[in-house]
Amino acid sequence: MKAVQVVGYGRNPEMTDVPEPSVTGPYDVVVRIGGAGVCRTDLHILEGQWAEKSGVTLPYTIGHENAGWVHAVGSAVTNVAEGDKVIVHPLITCGLCRACRSGDDVHCEQSLFPGIDTAGGYAEYLKTSARSVVRIDDSLEPADVAALADAGLTAYHAVAKAARKLRPGDRCVVIGAGGLGHIGVQVLKALTAAEIVVVDRNPDAVKLAGSVGADHGVVADGGQVEQVLELTGGRGAEVVIDFVGEGGATRDGVRVLRRAGDYHVVGYGENIDVPTIDIISNEINFIGNLVGSYNDLCELMVLAAQGRVRLHTTPYPLDRFQEALTDLDAGRVRGRAILVP
Amino acid sequence: MKAVQVVGYGRNPEMTDVPEPSVTGPYDVVVRIGGAGVCRTDLHILEGQWAEKSGVTLPYTIGHENAGWVHAVGSAVTNVAEGDKVIVHPLITCGLCRACRSGDDVHCEQSLFPGIDTAGGYAEYLKTSARSVVRIDDSLEPADVAALADAGLTAYHAVAKAARKLRPGDRCVVIGAGGLGHIGVQVLKALTAAEIVVVDRNPDAVKLAGSVGADHGVVADGGQVEQVLELTGGRGAEVVIDFVGEGGATRDGVRVLRRAGDYHVVGYGENIDVPTIDIISNEINFIGNLVGSYNDLCELMVLAAQGRVRLHTTPYPLDRFQEALTDLDAGRVRGRAILVP
Amino acid sequence: MKAVQVVGYGRNPEMTDVPEPSVTGPYDVVVRIGGAGVCRTDLHILEGQWAEKSGVTLPYTIGHENAGWVHAVGSAVTNVAEGDKVIVHPLITCGLCRACRSGDDVHCEQSLFPGIDTAGGYAEYLKTSARSVVRIDDSLEPADVAALADAGLTAYHAVAKAARKLRPGDRCVVIGAGGLGHIGVQVLKALTAAEIVVVDRNPDAVKLAGSVGADHGVVADGGQVEQVLELTGGRGAEVVIDFVGEGGATRDGVRVLRRAGDYHVVGYGENIDVPTIDIISNEINFIGNLVGSYNDLCELMVLAAQGRVRLHTTPYPLDRFQEALTDLDAGRVRGRAILVP
Amino acid sequence: MKAVQVVGYGRNPEMTDVPEPSVTGPYDVVVRIGGAGVCRTDLHILEGQWAEKSGVTLPYTIGHENAGWVHAVGSAVTNVAEGDKVIVHPLITCGLCRACRSGDDVHCEQSLFPGIDTAGGYAEYLKTSARSVVRIDDSLEPADVAALADAGLTAYHAVAKAARKLRPGDRCVVIGAGGLGHIGVQVLKALTAAEIVVVDRNPDAVKLAGSVGADHGVVADGGQVEQVLELTGGRGAEVVIDFVGEGGATRDGVRVLRRAGDYHVVGYGENIDVPTIDIISNEINFIGNLVGSYNDLCELMVLAAQGRVRLHTTPYPLDRFQEALTDLDAGRVRGRAILVP
Repeated sequence: MKAVQVVGYGRNPEMTDVPEPSVTGPYDVVVRIGGAGVCRTDLHILEGQWAEKSGVTLPYTIGHENAGWVHAVGSAVTNVAEGDKVIVHPLITCGLCRACRSGDDVHCEQSLFPGIDTAGGYAEYLKTSARSVVRIDDSLEPADVAALADAGLTAYHAVAKAARKLRPGDRCVVIGAGGLGHIGVQVLKALTAAEIVVVDRNPDAVKLAGSVGADHGVVADGGQVEQVLELTGGRGAEVVIDFVGEGGATRDGVRVLRRAGDYHVVGYGENIDVPTIDIISNEINFIGNLVGSYNDLCELMVLAAQGRVRLHTTPYPLDRFQEALTDLDAGRVRGRAILVP
Repeated sequence: MKAVQVVGYGRNPEMTDVPEPSVTGPYDVVVRIGGAGVCRTDLHILEGQWAEKSGVTLPYTIGHENAGWVHAVGSAVTNVAEGDKVIVHPLITCGLCRACRSGDDVHCEQSLFPGIDTAGGYAEYLKTSARSVVRIDDSLEPADVAALADAGLTAYHAVAKAARKLRPGDRCVVIGAGGLGHIGVQVLKALTAAEIVVVDRNPDAVKLAGSVGADHGVVADGGQVEQVLELTGGRGAEVVIDFVGEGGATRDGVRVLRRAGDYHVVGYGENIDVPTIDIISNEINFIGNLVGSYNDLCELMVLAAQGRVRLHTTPYPLDRFQEALTDLDAGRVRGRAILVP
Repeated sequence: MKAVQVVGYGRNPEMTDVPEPSVTGPYDVVVRIGGAGVCRTDLHILEGQWAEKSGVTLPYTIGHENAGWVHAVGSAVTNVAEGDKVIVHPLITCGLCRACRSGDDVHCEQSLFPGIDTAGGYAEYLKTSARSVVRIDDSLEPADVAALADAGLTAYHAVAKAARKLRPGDRCVVIGAGGLGHIGVQVLKALTAAEIVVVDRNPDAVKLAGSVGADHGVVADGGQVEQVLELTGGRGAEVVIDFVGEGGATRDGVRVLRRAGDYHVVGYGENIDVPTIDIISNEINFIGNLVGSYNDLCELMVLAAQGRVRLHTTPYPLDRFQEALTDLDAGRVRGRAILVP
Repeated sequence: MKAVQVVGYGRNPEMTDVPEPSVTGPYDVVVRIGGAGVCRTDLHILEGQWAEKSGVTLPYTIGHENAGWVHAVGSAVTNVAEGDKVIVHPLITCGLCRACRSGDDVHCEQSLFPGIDTAGGYAEYLKTSARSVVRIDDSLEPADVAALADAGLTAYHAVAKAARKLRPGDRCVVIGAGGLGHIGVQVLKALTAAEIVVVDRNPDAVKLAGSVGADHGVVADGGQVEQVLELTGGRGAEVVIDFVGEGGATRDGVRVLRRAGDYHVVGYGENIDVPTIDIISNEINFIGNLVGSYNDLCELMVLAAQGRVRLHTTPYPLDRFQEALTDLDAGRVRGRAILVP
């Protein structure tokens, strides 16, 4: 089958012919890819930023946001059958460790991450596990939801955690209205009655956030902290969800966090660097957020089927993978680029 | 009555004669002091570190860890009566704001803090509120529990929050086995079945922690991170409670925190300075902790009455206040110094 | 002032002239009534059903769903001022007991209930407490929201508790689409993404529920259990909220409750009568629900101001109180009858 | 191998020779039995009470409380190895359904229950799954802990849920100090600082409960409700855990439950039959409790290894199974009877 592989760091990937993956273990599932999201992490992989961390052997196939149709299943698989339309959770987890047994499978002690440390979905077929496939509603198409498998799932997970604290009348500041923030606002709208204040440097992104549910938009042009404080009664917001985490976002974010508030870290780049005296005297919390669990992905697919979460996508045929990567790198993709075999 | 007052920053306090406080409002309570804890914060106040923050007008009476007997009550007070033995919550709160109405009175929007921003308990009498007095068991003496009003209450609050997450088999690392850590270990023992690892620079403090319930003690002499990792299966602890917060404690603490773990900030001094990439990839949390609520203090007094929490104290007559302060500053006080009028 | 009083059980109430209430205590608040809801409980009071329970001395003024304008305040009141537009929480609570200090003021150890055990709001003025008044948004009118003070608050409280468990994809069965159920559906819609199935004997009520957010409506005409099971994948719903509690509702409700599900009891009349073997083998829970707390009422007023919760009302001038009561008893009131002085 | 089988209802079981179970699936685990608990449910099975519910085909081997050593493992098993000392969770679960993925594997949509609906542990070997075996500490012996696999796990599960609500100063009433109650008291002691009141008809059981941590014991001889109310300040207990559920236990239990309290149903037999008006006006909850999850069993094994939970057992050689059953039926077993092959 055709697959797009990393053949060296600092080089463009190449499309080659590789053997189709086949079922060898009892819980194996092979998925015929319907769409694979093109993510900024893919650019970082190609640059070599993940080389040491993943320890993967080149060449290998990238692509970690996948959806499609079940092509073959192992002997013990009972939750999906050939032909089912599925989205693929980014991790393959063991199901036996304490984290997996707690519903917290993202912290599995021996997980694999297709597209990062084993063969991914820039290909015609992907091998994954019964524990990683979620059937999607008839009304959804793989190419439309593929990008929810990782970016969307991370946003869902953070918002669902944050939502437990948000009561009517509370405010939630969303920093960053790009891919994740855009999903985040829609999920906040679905799960809470909180007032949503979105902050972004890009006026168009702020406007778009307004169209999917943000109550207030603030363009980060220098006066954003003051504007957000004004919108939050001078005391700041009960919850800040930071989808940026760099370029000074955390410094601003902490300033608009109310006493006893939760600061959700999702985006990354800079350090959280806050005096402990401020943390204790305001009794604020910093909450880390990784990608969501399998059950989180099921819930997100419910919201997608209900039309409550929508993502704009731009499809590219698989063999135009280089164009998709170049467009992403140049900021020319509106919404999310999706490779379609 | 006699009272010990701050008469200028950078100077010793002085004992003077001031009018006895009297009941003027319906919820006022005047307490005859049985014991007032001498706290490191008192030294900082005298140095002037709190001058700007508190905005208090000199001279004023310090002392924020108080217990004694109810001397007089306002017309609307129903929860205590003259003669009741009480410990005094450090804050006077409004009872009307959303925080007070949520049981989270520490975040009251208009609280007073006797001993910090209004007259405190280095005196014969203290004026406080019905909302701040907790009756204590017959078996307890004011001078013995006074120091639990602030230091002990802070430790209780942090541990009770942390305990919600701790299951049998989990590990909790306690950084700092001084006054707060000492109480913290006892509370952990009372509320959880977690394995307790105590870390402190002082071998005596580590030994003492062992005698009140710590399962393992580690002297912080350079190899503490490795030792704690070894004691926690190489993966670190589900919870770290940091009663130090300075001198590199937070850097060490983060290194012994397990994936998905909670880092409780209690002590302060340095910054929490952690890359957001580590926060999200390990999905760890930093939880701020202020002093406990009124209900927390009630619960701590239950543990004290049950003998589950004990604090070593060294009593000083009120007029030997300077000796107590000097001894504290010189590290000569075993346990907590208590002024007894 | 004019007031409508119970002058004897089994008799019609009478309008008489009574002294205007005045501020005597520091936290007293006198409210000029803008609207007082006419509730089925008022009919029961007049019949004498509450005589023993309340122990009230006749004559006294009824009316426990009140809203209006602050007319006078005691010396210690800081949260409202003369002229403020307010809704009145049905209980006057002490603020000092453990329940009040936990945010659970409904379980206050010494509360009063105006309209039940002391003078209520079928009058020109009502005396209540600073702890009971919630300022409402400029866009809301007292006569429009008065009925949310008790009936609406009870529905809000139950739904907000239930919502903590409801994830996207879960189903919530609402039994009863009358006054409370009608509010309940709107609150469910505001706080969750759960699928809502409404069951009622009255086809018009079912239809109305659909117009405010129910996803499915089932007329309880004998086949309701089977229909609900079919709508919930054969396994029943994760949550049932029973606003009826009589006429066999609980027997039906338990049959449509899924394993590990929560059954919220709100309406009352019959017994919960379920074999313990079923409770343990299905591991189901029965959750009692009383009226909401002060903070619950604040949150409900936010939803009302946002237009997310609306209640149809029929105003009557205060002196036509008998007509309102008779219409209610005869089932002639659409929505809620409100007395307007 | 030797196995004790049900050969007909209303008849004694018989020991016969059956083939040793062998590994056929990738997650299969065969355990060499070190001890199998003899449970009252086994008597009920033999009487035929479970015939319809389990739908099992006779003859089959009973025994659902098992522990021993791993004898053989399937190809995909990574969490245990041959020779490991293990306790066996009573259910074999799928690991793929939403309940399993939530850590709530007891509600697995397609579980098996060895000893109830498939071959159990009154035998030399038992076939179970990798998802069901928990390694135990070196210091524990299979025959000593086997009875914790079901009875103990049920008690642990209920208490761990109840403990989340119990604060210092709260009271917990434990109804029934037999096998489950005995474990329950020890777990309460390990996880909470609550005051424990035990009620039982048997004065010896009450005394024994006192020796493992109960603070107060009440013999149920008619005046138990009044005694418990007196011990709980006249208002009842924040939590009742009912390990009996028959003979009037629930009627008594509800009378000693405080406003806003939780009533945990564990034992079964009679109905919970309570007026909805009482449920709502006191806002009380009835919480069902089934056996615990896999992770619960891990936690219980930690408490056992720490010596915090101990169970008195009486060993019988496997071929004296009939004697064990007869002794149990006659009330002659002290603690728990254990069959040892």
